[in-house]
Amino acid sequence: MSERVKRELSQLGRSASIPENPDKAVLETFENPHPDVHYVVRLKAPEFTCLCPITGQPDFATIIVDYVPGKWILESKSFKLFLGSFRNTGIFHEDGTVYIHKRLKEALDPVYLRVIGFWNVRGGISIDVAVESGRLPENCRPLPIRQD
Amino acid sequence: MSERVKRELSQLGRSASIPENPDKAVLETFENPHPDVHYVVRLKAPEFTCLCPITGQPDFATIIVDYVPGKWILESKSFKLFLGSFRNTGIFHEDGTVYIHKRLKEALDPVYLRVIGFWNVRGGISIDVAVESGRLPENCRPLPIRQD
Amino acid sequence: MSERVKRELSQLGRSASIPENPDKAVLETFENPHPDVHYVVRLKAPEFTCLCPITGQPDFATIIVDYVPGKWILESKSFKLFLGSFRNTGIFHEDGTVYIHKRLKEALDPVYLRVIGFWNVRGGISIDVAVESGRLPENCRPLPIRQD
Amino acid sequence: MSERVKRELSQLGRSASIPENPDKAVLETFENPHPDVHYVVRLKAPEFTCLCPITGQPDFATIIVDYVPGKWILESKSFKLFLGSFRNTGIFHEDGTVYIHKRLKEALDPVYLRVIGFWNVRGGISIDVAVESGRLPENCRPLPIRQD
Amino acid sequence: MSERVKRELSQLGRSASIPENPDKAVLETFENPHPDVHYVVRLKAPEFTCLCPITGQPDFATIIVDYVPGKWILESKSFKLFLGSFRNTGIFHEDGTVYIHKRLKEALDPVYLRVIGFWNVRGGISIDVAVESGRLPENCRPLPIRQD
Amino acid sequence: MSERVKRELSQLGRSASIPENPDKAVLETFENPHPDVHYVVRLKAPEFTCLCPITGQPDFATIIVDYVPGKWILESKSFKLFLGSFRNTGIFHEDGTVYIHKRLKEALDPVYLRVIGFWNVRGGISIDVAVESGRLPENCRPLPIRQD
Amino acid sequence: MSERVKRELSQLGRSASIPENPDKAVLETFENPHPDVHYVVRLKAPEFTCLCPITGQPDFATIIVDYVPGKWILESKSFKLFLGSFRNTGIFHEDGTVYIHKRLKEALDPVYLRVIGFWNVRGGISIDVAVESGRLPENCRPLPIRQD
Amino acid sequence: MSERVKRELSQLGRSASIPENPDKAVLETFENPHPDVHYVVRLKAPEFTCLCPITGQPDFATIIVDYVPGKWILESKSFKLFLGSFRNTGIFHEDGTVYIHKRLKEALDPVYLRVIGFWNVRGGISIDVAVESGRLPENCRPLPIRQD
Amino acid sequence: MSERVKRELSQLGRSASIPENPDKAVLETFENPHPDVHYVVRLKAPEFTCLCPITGQPDFATIIVDYVPGKWILESKSFKLFLGSFRNTGIFHEDGTVYIHKRLKEALDPVYLRVIGFWNVRGGISIDVAVESGRLPENCRPLPIRQD
Amino acid sequence: MSERVKRELSQLGRSASIPENPDKAVLETFENPHPDVHYVVRLKAPEFTCLCPITGQPDFATIIVDYVPGKWILESKSFKLFLGSFRNTGIFHEDGTVYIHKRLKEALDPVYLRVIGFWNVRGGISIDVAVESGRLPENCRPLPIRQD
Ligand SMILES: [Ca+2]
Ligand SMILES: [Ca+2]
Ligand SMILES: [Ca+2]
Ligand SMILES: [Ca+2]
Ligand SMILES: [Ca+2]
Ligand SMILES: [Ca+2]
Ligand SMILES: [Ca+2]
Ligand SMILES: [Ca+2]
Ligand SMILES: [Ca+2]
Ligand SMILES: [Ca+2]
Ligand SMILES: [Ca+2]
Ligand SMILES: [Ca+2]
Ligand SMILES: [Ca+2]
Ligand SMILES: [Ca+2]
Ligand SMILES: [Ca+2]
Ligand SMILES: [Ca+2]
Repeated sequence: MSERVKRELSQLGRSASIPENPDKAVLETFENPHPDVHYVVRLKAPEFTCLCPITGQPDFATIIVDYVPGKWILESKSFKLFLGSFRNTGIFHEDGTVYIHKRLKEALDPVYLRVIGFWNVRGGISIDVAVESGRLPENCRPLPIRQD
Repeated sequence: MSERVKRELSQLGRSASIPENPDKAVLETFENPHPDVHYVVRLKAPEFTCLCPITGQPDFATIIVDYVPGKWILESKSFKLFLGSFRNTGIFHEDGTVYIHKRLKEALDPVYLRVIGFWNVRGGISIDVAVESGRLPENCRPLPIRQD
Repeated sequence: MSERVKRELSQLGRSASIPENPDKAVLETFENPHPDVHYVVRLKAPEFTCLCPITGQPDFATIIVDYVPGKWILESKSFKLFLGSFRNTGIFHEDGTVYIHKRLKEALDPVYLRVIGFWNVRGGISIDVAVESGRLPENCRPLPIRQD
Repeated sequence: MSERVKRELSQLGRSASIPENPDKAVLETFENPHPDVHYVVRLKAPEFTCLCPITGQPDFATIIVDYVPGKWILESKSFKLFLGSFRNTGIFHEDGTVYIHKRLKEALDPVYLRVIGFWNVRGGISIDVAVESGRLPENCRPLPIRQD
Repeated sequence: MSERVKRELSQLGRSASIPENPDKAVLETFENPHPDVHYVVRLKAPEFTCLCPITGQPDFATIIVDYVPGKWILESKSFKLFLGSFRNTGIFHEDGTVYIHKRLKEALDPVYLRVIGFWNVRGGISIDVAVESGRLPENCRPLPIRQD
Repeated sequence: MSERVKRELSQLGRSASIPENPDKAVLETFENPHPDVHYVVRLKAPEFTCLCPITGQPDFATIIVDYVPGKWILESKSFKLFLGSFRNTGIFHEDGTVYIHKRLKEALDPVYLRVIGFWNVRGGISIDVAVESGRLPENCRPLPIRQD
Repeated sequence: MSERVKRELSQLGRSASIPENPDKAVLETFENPHPDVHYVVRLKAPEFTCLCPITGQPDFATIIVDYVPGKWILESKSFKLFLGSFRNTGIFHEDGTVYIHKRLKEALDPVYLRVIGFWNVRGGISIDVAVESGRLPENCRPLPIRQD
Repeated sequence: MSERVKRELSQLGRSASIPENPDKAVLETFENPHPDVHYVVRLKAPEFTCLCPITGQPDFATIIVDYVPGKWILESKSFKLFLGSFRNTGIFHEDGTVYIHKRLKEALDPVYLRVIGFWNVRGGISIDVAVESGRLPENCRPLPIRQD
Repeated sequence: MSERVKRELSQLGRSASIPENPDKAVLETFENPHPDVHYVVRLKAPEFTCLCPITGQPDFATIIVDYVPGKWILESKSFKLFLGSFRNTGIFHEDGTVYIHKRLKEALDPVYLRVIGFWNVRGGISIDVAVESGRLPENCRPLPIRQD
Repeated sequence: MSERVKRELSQLGRSASIPENPDKAVLETFENPHPDVHYVVRLKAPEFTCLCPITGQPDFATIIVDYVPGKWILESKSFKLFLGSFRNTGIFHEDGTVYIHKRLKEALDPVYLRVIGFWNVRGGISIDVAVESGRLPENCRPLPIRQD
């Protein structure tokens, strides 16, 4: 593993505070150390929370990201802070999931990207939203999804 | 997220009573905030109940809806009230599941729509019914089904 | 098994309609064929539903009954109809569970009785209520509870 | 739902005895209320039992039926009685599963039909048999199988 | 292990047919090879079936037996045939479970005995019955019960 | 169920905003409709979140409350708002769980009270904290805990 | 079911001893009663054991066989004895699984055949081996695999 | 950790062959490094196999050992070889479990000892046997049992 | 929550390296903010690893700590570093678990303390070790254990 | 099974120490005994650990390898030592998984190869990485993945 990567990610070992809202959060990346190989990366974040834009009540979700990196890899601490920035933001399930997909697509310019939000039950009904873009290259099978 | 959506859905934070029967229930929608993106939405409702049209005894089911929105998103509270309106209605498993599919298709005019009813055991036998219409666009994989 | 029991329960094989409300429902019993033995009976009913007395919205629960019969055994079809009679009745979780316990105690006069209601999530919070009376005789261990 | 269907199925609310053997059992059907829609129906019967034709010992199985109705829907009570008629009949696992498939095909004339028998362990080995006919139309995905 | 036990159980390796009814079934035993030790034996039989004495419809149950042997051990093949003899017998859940307990108590004269019947759902309600006699000696903890 | 209870809880059907912090949140109660019966109530809230007082990073927990009511029952919507008020408050796992216990004890004056916090993994280690007060009366068995 | 099949399998009800090694074991078959239908048969044997050819220590595995019968059906008791014959035989995981596949292919001449061995953990690592031959005919979907 | 223990157990890193039968197997021990502390040790062996003494067919079991060491600790490799020595030995479930208990008691002279055998299903019935001796000292709770 | 606690734990937000071995690791504590209340704290660490003192091969375990604090609370980051310090240390299962118990007892001087190590399978056998000291005060029930 | 294979793998029964780092570890192979058959081999290693290259803290993962052998089979003990050599090596999740794939590809020259790393949660987020090369031949279906 290269020394360059260590320098790029020098804030990984340091503390950082949650951004005020998603627009202020920065998604950091580092260079894909294997740009010649197509592979699939999954990040699973079961601790997502935001607010209902109508009632102001908290909503909770698990966010799954599957992507095939192009030139860039998502730095997971900045992703955690990005997700944390929704904490006091009002947003609908569908809108929020599509927004996360859009931000990751901008930041990573990946070969393939899927974002899934599994939102907790409200009024006896749960909602899941899946947004996908790009195309899976040969030799890139998405991992199975256990979340229901 | 737009202010318009908030106005459209102004009844989300207000109380509402269960319609007398499914024909009287109104399925509300709001405008898809991302009509340029194909994505999959799942609603899972494990608290569905109606009556057997022959014996008058209660039946119970879990209803799963998967759809790819076109211009409209299903407002989940109106969907909850719609499902609640079957409470004192007599309907067969097959007929009820197809009816829900038909009503959602009319209300949403979606790119793709699947309704599945998982009906509880009666006489040692359970019945599941799955009704599907439209075609999944590229980049729209249905989420896995855990219900048995 | 005695012929007398068959006569007592002559409505088991016949159809019956759901009583209008719990006060109108009759809990039937038949004579304990083994009054000299202390044993434990559990009935588990995962298909209970009633209405919230404030909002009128449907509530759902699993009801578990554990009892040590004295002179009487609960006839399960009349119990099913009794539970079905809550369908359009407004009642709180705590109140409803205690009421079921009270009605069973009156009907069965059992040596021991426990009623547990496991009520589905509302607003991200589930509520369980357990009401117990009498005392477990020697050689009567309650079966474990898997419901969560 | 139509009044005609109620008349067709007038025996649903009445008692009926188990046929002596599968050849004497009648599989009843009622008219598909939605012949213009292709949909999938699953019946799952975990309480199947018959006898080993060699040793006379009881065998147990779960039977799963998946079909796409054409003109007819399977009436589930007659299906239960049909399965019950194997109770004192000797039949091998493979033979029995294929026989059930054949009888359902005759009775339903379905667009697609699959019968699976999951037979309990004997001598440390379990046997599953799956028989399929017809072709799944567009928009008809079989539901997943959880049985192992 | 003693040669005597082999002679006593000489029918274990031979075929045997299901008795016509429980009264005609014989529960065989063999001598406890360790009468000086108190230990717990569990037999679990998930393939029990009988008939409803009112409707004639099949019922299904899992039977669990826990006992501390005195002078005798239950021969498991004769127990299997005993359970098989209920196949065409009409009996209620409570009555059947107590009857099995009574027959085992007579045949084994055990230090402690518990019989539990876990009966499948009928009309949305399952019934479990537990009958216990004798007293657990020191150093005899019953194994946990996973059945629900 | 009494009309008085409905009046007392008149805000249940109305919207309410999350208090700024736990000290500003009010835990509402209503009169126990069955003060003569000892019974156990469990509330399970899997959507608790607060902040680490050192790093400012979000923490997540499931909160379980078991209590035997005396004169008062906890109104669950005010409990939800109370839990929601920790959202932007920094507090340690042990301190937070004991604080919730103290507030509930003050508000409910219950016969028995247990609060358990199951806190999510941090640095590969999860922490659970259980605080209990009072004494379980006869006929009050706590329900089993499935959380791990 | 035909009388001929009963004669062919006359040893099913009789005792038989474990062959000394796999080469001495005979895989028996009987005629496929439905040669005109393509269907899938699965045998699952979780009680396989052999020896490590290097260390002589026992190895354990679950063996799953999926096949589409041609003219012949595998007689399951001879298959059990065949698997039992590995008990004191040294063989590697890969070699053993391929050998079982080869023997079944010779004995059954099936339309399709897959053998999977799920071998227990050794040194913190488990090994699974899957060998497949032939081609699944139309209307023959392999059952899902739950083994991990 | 002491150097003495390493010398005592010098065969742990070396290969060893399975003893011909249980009587020839030696259960090795090493000195309890903490004889002043009462603690509980569990060994779980899911790969036990022996033969049925009547039919010669293989039997399979999971063996669980719980003990409170006195002066000696059980060396786990010698325990593995001891269990392996049953491979070609005919023994009944009850007899085998009691025999393992007796051998461990002789070898370890423990403060408390429990041996449980969970034997696989034969003829649709599984058998578990639990043998316990000694008394659990204060501060020694047995770990829960998940095996069913 | 007090400012003093924040100062005491000022290294929580800072990086720290793994100690060379357990003897060099320091278990830090902070003052129990509720010394007047008896409560139970559980720490669960599924990522423990050390070396076999004989073969040098890695061992893996889950460590569970249950304690009733007296004057001190265990700081979880120092506990993580303490567990990490076993990474290149050779120690037996029994010895290691007792050692962890001893170190925690010294550092915390708790009212009650239990340490359980669930060690992964080696040679087909897993080992669990449980060490307990002190006495559970009134109102302190240990949480259930799910680990197997 | 050939004698040659036994000679090739003569170190399987002997002890070996963990290599200092992955570059020093040797992946051993033996000749595929069935080069004429295409089959799938899976190795699952749930005990992988390395260090974070930035913070020096331990990371944990489960590594799954699926391959279709060409001329060579992976010797599993050398694979275990190879994985063990990461113990004190700093490497990122993505980089480490791709590195393992590269080394296996070099050593095995397989027809098809997939390496998946399931890395434990850090900061509330887990990461999985899947790297695949070659093409699955006909009759080679990858086994399902249960890891989540
Ligand atoms: Ca929404
Ligand atoms: Ca969900
Ligand atoms: Ca129907
Ligand atoms: Ca179902
Ligand atoms: Ca619940
Ligand atoms: Ca057969
Ligand atoms: Ca099965
Ligand atoms: Ca049950
Ligand atoms: Ca803390
Ligand atoms: Ca937890
Ligand atoms: Ca091998
Ligand atoms: Ca496995
Ligand atoms: Ca036996
Ligand atoms: Ca078992
Ligand atoms: Ca374990
Ligand atoms: Ca994972």
